[in-house]
Amino acid sequence: VVILVEPQMGENIGAAARAMANFGLSRLRLVKPREEWPNPQARKMASGADRVLDAAVVYDTLQSAIADCTLLLATTARAHDQAKPVIDAADAAQHAAPPVHGGESVGILFGRERTGLEKDDIALADAVVTVPLNPDFTSLNLAQAVLLLGYEWYQAGDSTPPRVLEMHGSVPATKDQLYAFFAHFERALDECGFLRNEEARPNMIRNMRNMWGRAELTEQEIRTLHGVVKELTTLREKKRP
Amino acid sequence: VVILVEPQMGENIGAAARAMANFGLSRLRLVKPREEWPNPQARKMASGADRVLDAAVVYDTLQSAIADCTLLLATTARAHDQAKPVIDAADAAQHAAPPVHGGESVGILFGRERTGLEKDDIALADAVVTVPLNPDFTSLNLAQAVLLLGYEWYQAGDSTPPRVLEMHGSVPATKDQLYAFFAHFERALDECGFLRNEEARPNMIRNMRNMWGRAELTEQEIRTLHGVVKELTTLREKKRP
Repeated sequence: VVILVEPQMGENIGAAARAMANFGLSRLRLVKPREEWPNPQARKMASGADRVLDAAVVYDTLQSAIADCTLLLATTARAHDQAKPVIDAADAAQHAAPPVHGGESVGILFGRERTGLEKDDIALADAVVTVPLNPDFTSLNLAQAVLLLGYEWYQAGDSTPPRVLEMHGSVPATKDQLYAFFAHFERALDECGFLRNEEARPNMIRNMRNMWGRAELTEQEIRTLHGVVKELTTLREKKRP
Repeated sequence: VVILVEPQMGENIGAAARAMANFGLSRLRLVKPREEWPNPQARKMASGADRVLDAAVVYDTLQSAIADCTLLLATTARAHDQAKPVIDAADAAQHAAPPVHGGESVGILFGRERTGLEKDDIALADAVVTVPLNPDFTSLNLAQAVLLLGYEWYQAGDSTPPRVLEMHGSVPATKDQLYAFFAHFERALDECGFLRNEEARPNMIRNMRNMWGRAELTEQEIRTLHGVVKELTTLREKKRP
């Protein structure tokens, strides 16, 4: 699933759709596009990739756009300071293939034309994907970034065996399940005062989400963790005088 | 050396220059561009890759544009019927790296936006490069094709050792030297009547050029072949009544 986060220009959405069609990608999602949707400029630039545009879905929030994904990759041009694996486009294809072949949804995020993805967008992802570029000229437009990722995806297509679905008797958690746990966990931390430093709060949350993200939690583990948070909270209340 | 054969739109030249700059490619040649050159639309689309445009050189013929190349690759989207190795973009980068690191010029041809390269263009090349694309949607624009080849070139960049220049005491022939031999050889064939069937002539020439091309001739071998053609012709002259 190609997810464009707050794309600014319809033209770029169309060109991205065309690049997707070149490599057999069909699922496009748009998070808060700046211009109206459907968009005539997008259609013009899609050069016939109408099926991709017709099937595109618009979301109000990034979180809703990635709810069903089990693996989420974030493309960035710049260095970032988050504790996350950084992989290249070929690695991304290798990572994405087993879950996709197992019937899961893998999302790949592309940021705003001017400013890319924000820290909080990246924090949601399991890994960061960068394309090595000439350091003296790193401006790559949105559709070109989609093209390169699509190219590697298509290259990997034939050579990757389907993953054995069985994972120790459980299945990977969806992002929806993961975020429901984040919400529960962070609410608990707010209530206990752990996050009372308003300035430090966003960064602390990001770091913890990254930590959970790296764990590649299963559905069963998420259920267990909900229980853990609930129990911890309840125990504290019982102790209250 | 990126060589655009009869590019139609200035915008596409600019976008190709930008894609080149992304991957550290700097030598651009244009064979008979349809629009005036320098071109303001090209500059606009180059998004700052001005150095590539400023250094671009315009040629009247493809043959003059590739005169100094020792290896020539032709990009095509469609299948073709010429006896030439067909490689993918990653292979192209692997093939190009040793001669480039040895100080030779390697050219890669990109065809016209609408119609691609013609048979006679492809006949000049040592190998054909194709990018595997979704068979239902194979329209890849010029700059995107340059981008994908540039990407693979940049990927290969660090991992390829420089070639040992010594090649059995000789150096590979440049295209200029090769075509001078073609001219000599084909003139001789015309004179002796071998090519008298006007309808079959172009195809016969193409096939023979492909044959010579596959031989990867050295300078010394070219000199030898000139001698062979000359001697054979002289023999025929001597035989004349």
